[in-house]
Amino acid sequence: MKASRFFIGTLKEAPADAEIVSHKLMMRAGMIRRVAGGIYDYMPIGLRSIRKVEAIVREEMNRAGALEILMPAVQPAELWQESGRWVQYGPELLRFKDRHDRDFVVGPTHEEVVTDIARRDIKSYRQLPVNFYQIQAKFRDEIRPRFGVMRGREFIMKDAYSFDKDQAGLAESYRKMFDAYVRIFSRIGLEFRAVAADNGSIGGSGSHEFHVIADTGEDAIAYCPDSDYAANVEAADALPLIAERAAPAEEMKKTPTPGKAKCEAVAEYLNIPLERTIKSIVLATENEGAEPTIWLLMLRGDHSLNDIKANKLPGLAGYRFATEQEIVEWFGTPPGYLGPLGTKKPVKVVADRTVANMSDFVVGSNEVDYHTTGVNWGRDLPEPVVADIRNVVEGDPSPDGRGALSMCRGIEVGHVFQLGTKYSDAMGATYLDETGKPASMLMGCYGIGVTRVLGAAIEQNFDDKGIIWPESIAPFEVVLCPMGYDRSDAVREQADKLYAQLQEAGIDVILDDRGERPGVMFADWELIGVPHRLVIGDRGLKEGKLEYQARRDTEATLLPVEEAGRVVIEKVKAALSK
Amino acid sequence: MKASRFFIGTLKEAPADAEIVSHKLMMRAGMIRRVAGGIYDYMPIGLRSIRKVEAIVREEMNRAGALEILMPAVQPAELWQESGRWVQYGPELLRFKDRHDRDFVVGPTHEEVVTDIARRDIKSYRQLPVNFYQIQAKFRDEIRPRFGVMRGREFIMKDAYSFDKDQAGLAESYRKMFDAYVRIFSRIGLEFRAVAADNGSIGGSGSHEFHVIADTGEDAIAYCPDSDYAANVEAADALPLIAERAAPAEEMKKTPTPGKAKCEAVAEYLNIPLERTIKSIVLATENEGAEPTIWLLMLRGDHSLNDIKANKLPGLAGYRFATEQEIVEWFGTPPGYLGPLGTKKPVKVVADRTVANMSDFVVGSNEVDYHTTGVNWGRDLPEPVVADIRNVVEGDPSPDGRGALSMCRGIEVGHVFQLGTKYSDAMGATYLDETGKPASMLMGCYGIGVTRVLGAAIEQNFDDKGIIWPESIAPFEVVLCPMGYDRSDAVREQADKLYAQLQEAGIDVILDDRGERPGVMFADWELIGVPHRLVIGDRGLKEGKLEYQARRDTEATLLPVEEAGRVVIEKVKAALSK
Repeated sequence: MKASRFFIGTLKEAPADAEIVSHKLMMRAGMIRRVAGGIYDYMPIGLRSIRKVEAIVREEMNRAGALEILMPAVQPAELWQESGRWVQYGPELLRFKDRHDRDFVVGPTHEEVVTDIARRDIKSYRQLPVNFYQIQAKFRDEIRPRFGVMRGREFIMKDAYSFDKDQAGLAESYRKMFDAYVRIFSRIGLEFRAVAADNGSIGGSGSHEFHVIADTGEDAIAYCPDSDYAANVEAADALPLIAERAAPAEEMKKTPTPGKAKCEAVAEYLNIPLERTIKSIVLATENEGAEPTIWLLMLRGDHSLNDIKANKLPGLAGYRFATEQEIVEWFGTPPGYLGPLGTKKPVKVVADRTVANMSDFVVGSNEVDYHTTGVNWGRDLPEPVVADIRNVVEGDPSPDGRGALSMCRGIEVGHVFQLGTKYSDAMGATYLDETGKPASMLMGCYGIGVTRVLGAAIEQNFDDKGIIWPESIAPFEVVLCPMGYDRSDAVREQADKLYAQLQEAGIDVILDDRGERPGVMFADWELIGVPHRLVIGDRGLKEGKLEYQARRDTEATLLPVEEAGRVVIEKVKAALSK
Repeated sequence: MKASRFFIGTLKEAPADAEIVSHKLMMRAGMIRRVAGGIYDYMPIGLRSIRKVEAIVREEMNRAGALEILMPAVQPAELWQESGRWVQYGPELLRFKDRHDRDFVVGPTHEEVVTDIARRDIKSYRQLPVNFYQIQAKFRDEIRPRFGVMRGREFIMKDAYSFDKDQAGLAESYRKMFDAYVRIFSRIGLEFRAVAADNGSIGGSGSHEFHVIADTGEDAIAYCPDSDYAANVEAADALPLIAERAAPAEEMKKTPTPGKAKCEAVAEYLNIPLERTIKSIVLATENEGAEPTIWLLMLRGDHSLNDIKANKLPGLAGYRFATEQEIVEWFGTPPGYLGPLGTKKPVKVVADRTVANMSDFVVGSNEVDYHTTGVNWGRDLPEPVVADIRNVVEGDPSPDGRGALSMCRGIEVGHVFQLGTKYSDAMGATYLDETGKPASMLMGCYGIGVTRVLGAAIEQNFDDKGIIWPESIAPFEVVLCPMGYDRSDAVREQADKLYAQLQEAGIDVILDDRGERPGVMFADWELIGVPHRLVIGDRGLKEGKLEYQARRDTEATLLPVEEAGRVVIEKVKAALSK
């Protein structure tokens, strides 16, 4: 491509509504233009990168045996009524009436439509397994679209849906998609992790998210650098940090801690490690027609409550925090010095796994300005109900026993999910099994946010000059910058020769023949993020040299004119074959 | 691709709502499935053909210098309010409100969005010309969707929009698109015609439709087999069929024609050619606060009125047919024997070009059961207002003077159109010209109905067994049908070898390893329309032969085993390079 025939829309400034790096850089590089909130045009340079993501996704989906189809964006309400989501789905589902007053939706996802295909076209176990996928613009009416393509309303998704005879088949289809996703994000060249949505092993999990690692990511991820364990912090198993409970060594003793309501203050005041203190969290659950049940959750002073885990405990689903009035009524004192000892009315005590193995610990005395030290399970308190109720922290043991957890932030770009028979049962998607009996198909669904991948790649790869694309999804792999294309025959001839050589080799090359000054040229291509640059100038040519610079290099290196083309071709090919 | 890993959904019967061949065959071949009225799933075999159409379109658009972008399906109402189409566009425009109660549309076309891009990103004449295109699913809420992909509600379009400095630039952009369309439909291998929407020469026209010729087409087209002239019958220039008016030879004479109200009956009764009679058509146009103007349009007895042409005549826009009461009031007689002679009140007479050159013709006498023969202009009637008001008929002279017109039917698959400054004026899309003054950009728009092309290709290429695809857009180019793939080692080995050979050569081959009986296999692939078939059987192999049959062949031919692969590869490559 020659730049004079291309459309380059670089901007000096990002618009004010662009809050994050990828949004700013995609606007400034001329990749996207805003049409409405969360709705964008993909300009030529942006679409080139999208098409490359799509091509890699398509190749790997085909390699995994999935079959590409295309379902409509506009879907009849009847299908959503059958699945129950017409009612369940919130206002993110765009509903409308057609000219005949019939209800439709613009599809944010396609489980209903694909299940409708399966129930009509799949009759026999001989037709299973099958995995249908599509790459398509989806619409989700986000209440507050932001962050450019990261949380848009209209966006491009690859969505796939597998159909299997039984759970073993589903597990196999799921594994194939998991492996395909690993290949896809590896080929794109992103640092990523497959994150278990519930627990960390692929075999036992019904759901994994694929996250691109970036400091700006919305999700906190706990992972083990020495294994492939990774989980959302919210979902990661928190093991006890104390392997075995030590025997009591201290006497229980009520101690004044005047004005020291927080664990940190208590530890400092008593001159003990924070790890000896206990945080008391008081929750309530309703009982119809009776007074609520009051719960005391005990965490180590340096830990925090994980409310997803707490919600899963028997009896605690839908809990709320207790009111001050309830606390006074049950504990005989306002919040600040609470503990399990001598409550006024009975409370249900749950100890975190780590707390359950502590000894000689410190709790509030249920009296203002007093804590009790040297408290021990069994001796001073009955043995507690034990549960995992805390968030993991850096350095925690990895649940797979293979090291310590690290923390990072991630951007979710993919999701694989075992749906089971949820949709096939609701919509009657059955097949005849080997014995001729009807059985529900087992379904999996597998998504990749194609446009989001671009944003995530940028969040992971940028500097103060602009985007730094991996070769795999760069709009162009190489830019040729001739200094004086319109003035110097030698420069023009050499640039044209290189252009032809690179094109011949299948390199995605752009020749900047716009006649811009070097500063403008360099700034544009650094902003756009082309990974390799060759500068052709009269001065260098006299010495038989060209300037080569990779986008990540801080300085240019000189290459002999006759070798420059070959060297760059090899660099690109090496990067793409990684 | 191996058939066992593919999804083949052939049906014995088409659904009852499928009225035309392409709809029936696309359903039966398993290409599409109905989701709602005019809304379809594209199944794997259907999508393969769509992708091939898209690839050809994309290649030729790129070759013509157009730049691919992707605009959103969902568009804010504000843009449509600016252009005026929020009001003008009928109920085919799907309007909806988002969760914040803001108005949006699902785009049936993208003039507004692309003009919005241009006005923001194009500042200077140096950025012109530019031509943006996209390939995308569009939605048009047809009141009565039918004919499968031919008139669906959601469909795939390629739409392009050019921006130029001036009319000369627009004409050049238009010409490039016109040429690209000719290449696209030629490469696909369809018989087609570029049809002028107003007049027949590309230079002078602001709009051409590209029609695939098929007996089942909705549009009637007049074309000249000896030139490239073609026009919608409604738009084709009708030249006078009599070059020069002959001098009067007969006396004017009132003649009884009892009960003969139609030209055919009068001609037969008087024993004269129909070409001597005149058809009188009485129209009315309203005059506010006064009585209407009554018009008498005179056509030769064998011709028919073209109401598009009539509507363009000065004073006749928005005409209606006169009521019987008006006819009696102006002509003194009810319809049946009307003419220009001696009307009761004055009428405006318009003669078709052919009628204007007639002499000694026959008109109604404005008296029941009477006609007048030997009527002549100048002598018996004042010279008339002359205009082209009739439809062309087979055998008419071609307006380009290069032969006689033929008639055919066509399916519109593409449209190129010079918009001029309609949208750029309405939406303020200006650029700074060479002198630094703002000027409106000149726009053109260029559409291809990608999914419609499939339907049109089938309407042009089918037989009683099914579809006959041109190689360019066939879901597979070659099918290998082994007889007993699971039973005979020799057959399986030979089939696998051919499969590898064809794949190696880049042929899109499917190996039918499903183990179906030959009858089922052949019927499926004939229905699906794969253009080349090789049958591998034990009997043939013993003699060193394979059976080859092209989809259009009535019989198979035998090929030596060792040559079969090469022969088929050559046939496919020859067809694709046409």
